[in-house]
Amino acid sequence: MRVAGVPHRSIALAADGWAVEVVDQAALPHTFRLVRLESLEAVADAIRTMRLRGAPLIGAGAAYGIALAMRADASDRALDDAVRALLRTRPTAVNLRAAVDDMEIRLRPLPAGERVRAAYARAAALCEADVEINRQIGCHGVALIRERWSRLQRTVNVMTHCNAGWLATVDLGTALAPVYVAHGEGIPLHVWVSETRPRNQGALTAWELAQEGVPHTVFVDGAAGHLMQRGAVDLCLVGTDRTTVRGDVANKIGTYPKALAARAHGVPFYVAAPSPSIDWTLDDGTAIPLEERDGGEIATVSGVPVLNVAFDVTPAELVTGLITERGICPASREGLARLFPDRTS
Amino acid sequence: MRVAGVPHRSIALAADGWAVEVVDQAALPHTFRLVRLESLEAVADAIRTMRLRGAPLIGAGAAYGIALAMRADASDRALDDAVRALLRTRPTAVNLRAAVDDMEIRLRPLPAGERVRAAYARAAALCEADVEINRQIGCHGVALIRERWSRLQRTVNVMTHCNAGWLATVDLGTALAPVYVAHGEGIPLHVWVSETRPRNQGALTAWELAQEGVPHTVFVDGAAGHLMQRGAVDLCLVGTDRTTVRGDVANKIGTYPKALAARAHGVPFYVAAPSPSIDWTLDDGTAIPLEERDGGEIATVSGVPVLNVAFDVTPAELVTGLITERGICPASREGLARLFPDRTS
Repeated sequence: MRVAGVPHRSIALAADGWAVEVVDQAALPHTFRLVRLESLEAVADAIRTMRLRGAPLIGAGAAYGIALAMRADASDRALDDAVRALLRTRPTAVNLRAAVDDMEIRLRPLPAGERVRAAYARAAALCEADVEINRQIGCHGVALIRERWSRLQRTVNVMTHCNAGWLATVDLGTALAPVYVAHGEGIPLHVWVSETRPRNQGALTAWELAQEGVPHTVFVDGAAGHLMQRGAVDLCLVGTDRTTVRGDVANKIGTYPKALAARAHGVPFYVAAPSPSIDWTLDDGTAIPLEERDGGEIATVSGVPVLNVAFDVTPAELVTGLITERGICPASREGLARLFPDRTS
Repeated sequence: MRVAGVPHRSIALAADGWAVEVVDQAALPHTFRLVRLESLEAVADAIRTMRLRGAPLIGAGAAYGIALAMRADASDRALDDAVRALLRTRPTAVNLRAAVDDMEIRLRPLPAGERVRAAYARAAALCEADVEINRQIGCHGVALIRERWSRLQRTVNVMTHCNAGWLATVDLGTALAPVYVAHGEGIPLHVWVSETRPRNQGALTAWELAQEGVPHTVFVDGAAGHLMQRGAVDLCLVGTDRTTVRGDVANKIGTYPKALAARAHGVPFYVAAPSPSIDWTLDDGTAIPLEERDGGEIATVSGVPVLNVAFDVTPAELVTGLITERGICPASREGLARLFPDRTS
């Protein structure tokens, strides 16, 4: 996507061809700057501190983290350590594990001397795959917006949560990909952006929508119900950090109450679910490990007891459909099996 | 209530007997300090900027605002101006109008020379009435907590929203009055305190619960659904800024999604509704004027489009019951008519 007219990806190799540059999401929306990562430790730290965030981007970052680790030491033990270090960073998004597993399976059989080149090549391929997946999600998802536009003949109001845009992915975004495609087609739309406490990723979404010229309005998380009650929302589009085989969805804390409000007011609630976000080993969403982060992200004075759970689980029953790179399907075992017969049994 | 062992009210006459002292709620939870208000303008400004906040306390503050105005100028015109200035400050809480109407009706027939003494006396009486109302709400509401304790035989988990405690009233609180009574009776309880963006009144609630030694945990507004989904909440207790005759409730933004989640998970949702919060002229909650505040309360960078609506409306259907000073009733015309036959027709 573009920043001040210059195309940018959220992650890319630096000009020297070995270090990795990512958008520093901790500096946004105040400052746009790239941060250079030169080691596995730097990548793991960026993921942990959320300078590098967004489930798909964490997957891409982890792949490059392994490449950087191999560049320093391509031994079996270094590979083991890199895998462990990355899996420890954040527990909920399954894209991280998918990327790490993919890298490990490819690198493990190779002699140490071939691992560095193979690791960089595979990380780059995973990034390209992410962009292509998001392009397909945009193509499938835009139909939902187009249909509402042709029926309503007025600006389509989309509500999103957290940031599932190009900042959270290598490029294009997941939940925002349909928005960008629709905007590119000239469909009049407006995005309701929830603040997304405690980390305020809504400010990231507002920032990237502003870069692309998409009309939007920020509101506090607690106002989602009010907006739907007053008929201000035509469609909800959110991302997912982990999707189960039956279609339950773990996403940023605050997603579930939006799904409840959407159901109460008949607002369709779609989840952009790229296949790397699907955990084919899990059925029940309540079994998804939910990250708890430091209470200091919420409390402004010390000593206040805080529960800072970073994700919640929306049951499949509240999800109108999953937008995947292979099309839109019901949030159900049958829906996913139809699109991914190669992954489900 | 107590601050460092010293009893305090949220509003009181200063030692000189004419100026008004209120807790500076903008300085909390970092600093506890009293702020001295010497004029109508100072009171109106404190209400507008939310140094003086909470529907019942705004009513008490407005009464003293008129007393201060009368002290400066007890003419008919000054009374008119004071009424207008106060009604302009904040539109949603009906306690403000109730207090201003009460003061005006009593002062208008009096000669100017008698208005100052009468205004101070009436403001003091309204404050005493607020304390007594809250005491009654505590006595009635504690039965809800006591019943759960005797049934569950473990710590009772109460979820609240915003601040409806002693800071928001002259003393004791509305939604928190039953909590304080239960705590005083030795019933083990724990309060889930939602952050309440954008003004973070959850920090006020956490602060005052800490002063009283009541166990509590702060969470972001978006996590209410998750907590109820995981069975962590036995009872919701919230306040109200305006209650309609049919039992619809306008309260701080974010109340409505909590009511939706409570319904989805079978959690009883009670509203502490002192009679001055009841608008006997309104039936339909969607007709309640909802204050919109400055976007700067949400956005950290300028130029970001923001909708900052400060209240939402929870329909009576989602309210398990209203806790009034005359007892607990269903949130319905019939329920209110049974308790307030003198106010309803």
